[in-house]
Formats: sequence, C-alpha cells, structure tokens
Amino acid sequence: MNVFVSEVRQLIDRHLPHYVQSLQAEPRLKEAMCYSLEAGGKRVRPLLLMAVLEAYGKPISIGLEAACAIEMVHTYSLIHDDLPAMDDDDYRRGQLTNHKMYDEATAILAGDALLTHSFGLIADAETTEMTAEIKVALISIFSKAIGAPGMVGGQLADMLAEKKSLTVDELAHIHRRKTGDLLTFSIVAGAYIAGVNKEDRLCLEQFGQELGLVFQIKDDILDVESDSETLGKPVGSDETNYKSTYPGLLGLDGAKKMLSYHHEQAKGYLHKLGLSDTILGEIADYLVERLH
Amino acid sequence: MNVFVSEVRQLIDRHLPHYVQSLQAEPRLKEAMCYSLEAGGKRVRPLLLMAVLEAYGKPISIGLEAACAIEMVHTYSLIHDDLPAMDDDDYRRGQLTNHKMYDEATAILAGDALLTHSFGLIADAETTEMTAEIKVALISIFSKAIGAPGMVGGQLADMLAEKKSLTVDELAHIHRRKTGDLLTFSIVAGAYIAGVNKEDRLCLEQFGQELGLVFQIKDDILDVESDSETLGKPVGSDETNYKSTYPGLLGLDGAKKMLSYHHEQAKGYLHKLGLSDTILGEIADYLVERLH
Repeated sequence: MNVFVSEVRQLIDRHLPHYVQSLQAEPRLKEAMCYSLEAGGKRVRPLLLMAVLEAYGKPISIGLEAACAIEMVHTYSLIHDDLPAMDDDDYRRGQLTNHKMYDEATAILAGDALLTHSFGLIADAETTEMTAEIKVALISIFSKAIGAPGMVGGQLADMLAEKKSLTVDELAHIHRRKTGDLLTFSIVAGAYIAGVNKEDRLCLEQFGQELGLVFQIKDDILDVESDSETLGKPVGSDETNYKSTYPGLLGLDGAKKMLSYHHEQAKGYLHKLGLSDTILGEIADYLVERLH
Repeated sequence: MNVFVSEVRQLIDRHLPHYVQSLQAEPRLKEAMCYSLEAGGKRVRPLLLMAVLEAYGKPISIGLEAACAIEMVHTYSLIHDDLPAMDDDDYRRGQLTNHKMYDEATAILAGDALLTHSFGLIADAETTEMTAEIKVALISIFSKAIGAPGMVGGQLADMLAEKKSLTVDELAHIHRRKTGDLLTFSIVAGAYIAGVNKEDRLCLEQFGQELGLVFQIKDDILDVESDSETLGKPVGSDETNYKSTYPGLLGLDGAKKMLSYHHEQAKGYLHKLGLSDTILGEIADYLVERLH
C-alpha cells in the first residue's frame, strides 16, 4: 500500500498547484488557493478514488482530474468552515488558516474559485474514459454530494446543532452529509471512471457510506486520545466547542465498538465485490488505525 | 419586447424557487437561498440567453435550466459580495442583504449552495437539445467565466483597486471580468443551446462583451444620476466607497459618449449576424435606456 499511497500523493501534489497556476488570474488569488491546497492534506479522497481504479485494473492517471477536483472542493470547504462567521479557527494542520494568512475577503474568494474550478476540471478532462456522458453523470452527482443536500447542508446542520444534545442517529445524519457524501463520491466517481457496472457501483456506494462513518468516528476518537502535535490542532477542541461527538454520546469504549462495527460492514461490502485483497481494503484499514 | 420580457421573467420567477425547494436540505438554508433569488432581480442574464434562442427560432424553454443556473450564480455573487468582509452592504434592491436578514454563516453557505447547484442544474437538464457534449462545453466555459479567470478574480481585482486611481483600460478590464464574463456567457450559452455555428457564436461572444461594457457604464452613470428610490440603493455609493467609475474618469458626458460607442459596436455585431430586428436588439437598447 505504501508505494501506492506515495505514488498517488506525488501525482496529486504535483498537479494541484499546476491546475491553479495555469489560470489567468490575480497572483494573490492563486497564491491563496495554493496555500490551502498545499497545506499538507492526507489526500484521503484522491486515494480512495484511485484505489477503486486500481482495484478494477485501470491506470490511476485516468482519474487525475476528478481526484484533483474533489481535493479542491475538500480544500474550499475547509477554508470556508474556518472563517470567523463559521468555526472561527486560526490554525489548521499546524498552519495559519487561509483568512489568517491572507484576509477574510481573499479566503472567501479563494474558496469560491476552488469550488468553481473543480467543475471545470472534470468538464475539461481529456482521457478517452472520461466521455461526455460520464462527465455529466459525475458533475450531477458531485453537485448533490457537495451542495445543499450534502456537504453544505451538513455544515449548516452541524452549526445549528452546536450546544444541543443529539442522538447518535442525528449525529450520524449530520456527518453523513458533512463529510460522508464527499468521501462516498470519491469512491463512486472511481467506479464511474473505471466503467464498473451499476450493481457493483451501488455496492461500492454503500462501502463508501460505511467508510464515511469510520472516518468521522475515528476523527472524534482522535480528538480525545491524541496529542496536539500529532493531530495538528488543539486536542479536545470538540469538547471546548460543545460539539456532540461519538465518544461524548457513547463513551470512548462505545465509540470504538461503533468504529469496529462500521469497519466490519465496510469490509463486508468489499468481500461481496471480491475486492477484499486490494489496496482499497488496506486503505479502509488505515482509516481505522491512523494516528492523525 | 414587453411580452417576451414578462414571459421570460414569469418562467424564471416560477422555476428558480422550485429548483431550490425540491432539494432535500435544511429549511433555513433553502429559505436563505430563495430570499435572495426572489429579491426582485431584473433577470437580465436569462433574458439575454432566451433572446438568443428566440432570435434563432428556438423555443425559450430549452434554455430554462441554463438560464436558472446563471441567475443562481449571479445571486450567489451578490450574496458573497455584500458580506462584511467584502463590500459590507446592508441593503440590496431596497431589501436587507442576506447576511443581515439571516447571519453571515448562513449567507456564506447559501451562496456556496447556489453556486454548487447551478452546475448540477445544467448537468441534469432534460431537453434533447442539451446533449452531453453541449452540457460539458457549457460547464467548461461557465467555470472559467465565473471562476478565478473571470468573475471571482474580477471581484478581488475590484477590491484591490479600491482607493487607487485606475486608467479607463484598467477599469474596463476589471469590469469585463467582474460582470462582463457572466453576461457574455449568457449569450454564448444561448448560442450553444440553439446550435449556432462557430463563426456566428464568436460574433455573438463579441456582441456580449460590448454589452457587458454597456451594462457597467450605464450602472456607473445611474449611480450618479438616479435617485435612491428608483435605484434601490443609496445614490453616489461608488463615490462614497472611493471606487473608480466611468463618470469619475471621463466626466458624465464622456461616460455617456463611451456608452453610445459600445452600444453602437454591439449593434454592429448584431447587424453582421442579420439579427438587428430581433428582441436581442431591443434588449441591447433597453440596457442603455433603463432607469435602474
């Protein structure tokens, strides 16, 4: 897996700034866009997309534009979420947040520009696998996954839920939209680009939904268990922000049990697809075992 | 023209809130999105797109999704531009701005959701004229027109230029991107959907660029000449905000001459296309004569 992970990360890290720098626009805007794109993300979503391609024997390069589009949207969502009017964070991954490094107006616009460019990137993809029909399908699903029904709505729901006590189901529903839908889209996009049949695609989608829960529960556990240096942000910040979390609702042990449960569910879907022994399975394991 | 204008406005006014309300999302988010969509815009961009369809003998209904997508993007840009970190406006078209009516976080997210949904709307269009190839072409051009190379970059350039004195060329360059590119896209989108050949499409694009200048110069003149009630915002707000304007740089008479010049240029392109006696020509005239 390690070779695959570093290959994907290198590919993404090389192309992301290139896609921005080639735009005809203000240097300050492009700099702000690249600042957050290059702030050391784990590239989990591109890894998932490309692991699907790998699992179906396709070259990962055919998913490059879609993977970069997804990473741009993930980055824009972090920039806007960090704004003073939203989560009001000064640091992210151990670095100043975008509006602290530049200013609020630039951060809002850099986010808007990343979101906008992501759709153009998919539309402009040049490989033969990316037919017009597949591009249109991807853009349609993408806009729902990251729009009002998905990520953007999830972010509002998350803010409206602050200082309220939620049930586990309510918490899961918020996180399914806030982080799960984009994660799931990464996998579904890989399936479309690899030409996977509809039945298997739906199974991969369910795998993605389980993985989204794994990802979020693990995040909540890390927020309690890790140290600030490993995590890149203050430990216990969820508690300070009065946010409902899995360990808060279920206790640390209960949260870990729930993490195991959804991990097993995810692996079950992979098994059904005959993809247990692929890098996709290893990444699912990594998401459970990761330290930050 | 009047029958056409009210027909288009009714069509757009009816469908815009419908597209938002049918989304599965928080009522507060949808309400904020609709609040600004329904704040009494002139629907200039949908009118232009549909006037192109009309000029080529096509039913205007085939441009409905694209026209609504453009209006959503126009609306999102106003919501974000009005934010405290940007132009910091409390009123727009005589109503509270989105962040004043709701709050900053909701306004940022409502803008993000409108932008995101606009791409999905084009991807999901169902008429036979909107083939996958045309959708992909539209999305590609759209993302450039409203992204870093176009509208978003233009907004940053406009902010960076505040309190600086610009040349007429610099001012035109900012406005070409800030407002001209989306206006031009409305016309180009109409040309694609109507199946206009490439040569005529390029001519229509030039017509659109001239019209963008007409629109902005007229806006600047109205800011000096109109009264606050007709305009729906304080008169002279450009001067108060130390913004470079055409009347500021050229005098009121000079600005009016420039307006006439670009109006003539625009009409010249229509003449070349044999479209002088269409509603498109009447709308170009209306943009010069309008009172708000």
